Amino acid sequence: MKLRDLAERLGCELIGGGEVEVDGVGGIEQAGPRDVTFLANPRYAPQLAATRAAAVVLAAGHDAPLPRLVSDNPYLAFARAVGVLRPPGRPAPGVHSSAQVDPTAVLGPGVHIGALAVVGAGVSVGARSVVHPHVVLCEGVEIGEDCLLHSGVQVRERCRFGNRVVVQNGAVIGADGFGFARDREGRYHKFPQVGIVVIEDDVEIGALTAIDRAALGETRVGRGTKLDNLVQVGHSVTIGEDTVLAGQVGVAGSTRIGSKVTLAGQVGVAGHLTIGDGAIATAQTGIPGTVEKGAVVSGSPAIENRAWLKSSAVFAKLPELQKRLRELERKVAALVEPPGPR
Amino acid sequence: MKLRDLAERLGCELIGGGEVEVDGVGGIEQAGPRDVTFLANPRYAPQLAATRAAAVVLAAGHDAPLPRLVSDNPYLAFARAVGVLRPPGRPAPGVHSSAQVDPTAVLGPGVHIGALAVVGAGVSVGARSVVHPHVVLCEGVEIGEDCLLHSGVQVRERCRFGNRVVVQNGAVIGADGFGFARDREGRYHKFPQVGIVVIEDDVEIGALTAIDRAALGETRVGRGTKLDNLVQVGHSVTIGEDTVLAGQVGVAGSTRIGSKVTLAGQVGVAGHLTIGDGAIATAQTGIPGTVEKGAVVSGSPAIENRAWLKSSAVFAKLPELQKRLRELERKVAALVEPPGPR
Amino acid sequence: MKLRDLAERLGCELIGGGEVEVDGVGGIEQAGPRDVTFLANPRYAPQLAATRAAAVVLAAGHDAPLPRLVSDNPYLAFARAVGVLRPPGRPAPGVHSSAQVDPTAVLGPGVHIGALAVVGAGVSVGARSVVHPHVVLCEGVEIGEDCLLHSGVQVRERCRFGNRVVVQNGAVIGADGFGFARDREGRYHKFPQVGIVVIEDDVEIGALTAIDRAALGETRVGRGTKLDNLVQVGHSVTIGEDTVLAGQVGVAGSTRIGSKVTLAGQVGVAGHLTIGDGAIATAQTGIPGTVEKGAVVSGSPAIENRAWLKSSAVFAKLPELQKRLRELERKVAALVEPPGPR
Repeated sequence: MKLRDLAERLGCELIGGGEVEVDGVGGIEQAGPRDVTFLANPRYAPQLAATRAAAVVLAAGHDAPLPRLVSDNPYLAFARAVGVLRPPGRPAPGVHSSAQVDPTAVLGPGVHIGALAVVGAGVSVGARSVVHPHVVLCEGVEIGEDCLLHSGVQVRERCRFGNRVVVQNGAVIGADGFGFARDREGRYHKFPQVGIVVIEDDVEIGALTAIDRAALGETRVGRGTKLDNLVQVGHSVTIGEDTVLAGQVGVAGSTRIGSKVTLAGQVGVAGHLTIGDGAIATAQTGIPGTVEKGAVVSGSPAIENRAWLKSSAVFAKLPELQKRLRELERKVAALVEPPGPR
Repeated sequence: MKLRDLAERLGCELIGGGEVEVDGVGGIEQAGPRDVTFLANPRYAPQLAATRAAAVVLAAGHDAPLPRLVSDNPYLAFARAVGVLRPPGRPAPGVHSSAQVDPTAVLGPGVHIGALAVVGAGVSVGARSVVHPHVVLCEGVEIGEDCLLHSGVQVRERCRFGNRVVVQNGAVIGADGFGFARDREGRYHKFPQVGIVVIEDDVEIGALTAIDRAALGETRVGRGTKLDNLVQVGHSVTIGEDTVLAGQVGVAGSTRIGSKVTLAGQVGVAGHLTIGDGAIATAQTGIPGTVEKGAVVSGSPAIENRAWLKSSAVFAKLPELQKRLRELERKVAALVEPPGPR
Repeated sequence: MKLRDLAERLGCELIGGGEVEVDGVGGIEQAGPRDVTFLANPRYAPQLAATRAAAVVLAAGHDAPLPRLVSDNPYLAFARAVGVLRPPGRPAPGVHSSAQVDPTAVLGPGVHIGALAVVGAGVSVGARSVVHPHVVLCEGVEIGEDCLLHSGVQVRERCRFGNRVVVQNGAVIGADGFGFARDREGRYHKFPQVGIVVIEDDVEIGALTAIDRAALGETRVGRGTKLDNLVQVGHSVTIGEDTVLAGQVGVAGSTRIGSKVTLAGQVGVAGHLTIGDGAIATAQTGIPGTVEKGAVVSGSPAIENRAWLKSSAVFAKLPELQKRLRELERKVAALVEPPGPR
């Protein structure tokens, strides 16, 4: 396609090269002569001099020796360019002959059900949704429109998805929460998990992520929230909108996470607590209690991020501090009781 | 059912409302007028004034403006009430036509094998066990009676399960342990993992949890032990009875964990060590060495919990301590060598 | 087989027992009278006195009351002995009748495709590779020769494997990386992940491990590298050769890990950084920045291992240090302003 047409699709200002033909995308160093590339981090600007790309998406104010697509959010504009130039393949509508679809299931128009998928009794799948091979939708599951479930996803009974939900391979939605009552002898008895999971519109769920059904009521993931791989969301957790949980985050039961929250990789959150809107926890943070709206926390147990950075810097010098303390003790002892002749 | 009959089933004392009809369960705030609710944590007692529930399961000594089912373990009694009022569906006995069952497999009476499950050569499945869709039982696997394997579970060759074992979706039992011998050039060569995994009676295994087979001999999970989601159990690990491993716990090879142990979320345990009966590790603890019977440990590396709490409190004040130390050094220097005229 | 023949196969010197028949392997304490055992860790040497094994693989210089197979790398020699005495079963070549193999897929000689596996359009599987039940190979995947994919593995479109790659159950190779562009309102928009994953020769990937496809270009795991279970490898990560990632390690996007690196259990690595060849990170280390070649790091945030060990020792004494500081402050205050009559 011509750069001029791409610029129009993306809503970018085009500087130069309107007639240039492009048909692919690539990083600054890998892009070929028919590829569009991008500059989101100014630190890579010097590499523009050597790129072979046909054009670059970047912010205003950068110079470059090739046609420029100027955007105030170049990363977002380039993400759209990728979608335009490398459109995802879409399997044809229909049910594969090897899929096991219960006769009571209701499939909307344009739905694709892949090989060896299992669609249980009373399941509904909304228009144009794609269910890849080896997905299991248990009894009574409701999937909205334009959803994309990659192979190996398991969705347990009665869980509900909104529209445009994407689930990566092997994720498990709605397994039993971890609920057991302990008896006098210290043995555990299962608390039947009779609730469900509700996934709102535009959520993406990573590969091998587990979101447990509620004991009673529901576990809920809010609109637009994105969960990375190998994340654990306990029973009855509520997550707000446009929140991000990075890889291997764990959230224990009944916790409420607000909107626009960011939990970086391997963060752990205890149960029955609240994380306010816009809060951020850096990687490996352990959160034992409530986090205020907008707070930035780090460490295990979590404290305010700047305090943690300072304490961590001192931590690395603790042996030296201990030595200095000992030295002081010696000097003060000498001052208090000056060494005299015995 | 009548509250009177429910009370009898649960072994609870009933105060008021014997003729009231109930048919569901719910949390204090969500319960409707035909639901039973519960009070396990006294902190929620004030909410009883506003609940719409038909009755509440609670400990003696609480007042409440609705019929009461009194138990000395209200959480356990309520868990049983859930089982009575919301009994789990049970798939009908039989083998789904799309399942692949080897002719040498032996299925007990009342067994259910779901759609597209694979049951290998020489497998045995005990009476009334339920094998959901897309489960794979490799050659020679032995499953006891009344087990429940949710969809997507993989059980590798020759592993053995006791009775009433529950496995949530996508768990992997018996994959090869992580064993490699390093040669002179630093290359790794596989140590064939020829052992098995043994899961004793009444164990529950969470979604996407991996329990590796032993290199030689067996990996063993003891009676009544409960593992949450995304837990990693290395080869040749032994876990005792009635132990709990919360989400994302990792246990390295050959470690021995006792009975009635609790490892909270994201705890990591090194290999070849022992954790004594009744020990507790709080969330994200890193355990590099032996933990004594009954100990409570925290931190990475783990130390005694109370000491860790105190040290963590001081950690947050380290920059201030450093400043105070500097100030003291200045003062002591002045005392040792008083500033004089030069 | 006779010990003499085994010794020859392993390239070990045999001391005694050439005519002894052996047909199994076992640990020192479990081995039976026809089993070979091994001694890799000298700490277990006293147990040799009581072993019932037929022979022991060990290093020179150990005495033992049974026939000895002497090797300068006894663990490696024993690993080979296990392979000789307990050879892995190999499923017969051929495609199971229930597998779904696209007519455009190309299967090499001796390939086995298990029950209910899905082999997509344009897939190639090299000679003698084994694809177990319920594996999904999406469109255009290339699998080399002599690979072993255990049940439940998912390989997404166009990913490429070298030869002799082993993948344990439930691993997911090539799911979409976690890439989203944020708009002015704080909503996230998917950055289409159009790259692939390349797995080089002799790599082993653990159960339920996720290796994401690149946004653009490729994610790459180098020759001979071994990944344990539940590991997360983000998009566009590059891992060198003969590197080891233990259980539950997480590596964020675009990071470059060198060769012969060891990351112990639950280590977390931030994105866009470099870990030099031969570096080691101990369990639960959190790596926020570049790690030099050969460095040994620990802690979160990571510092040099010996410094961390010392600081951790002082951490456990922080309350005592604080008390000593307070005491010094009192003494120095008294020296500066001696208490006088009021």
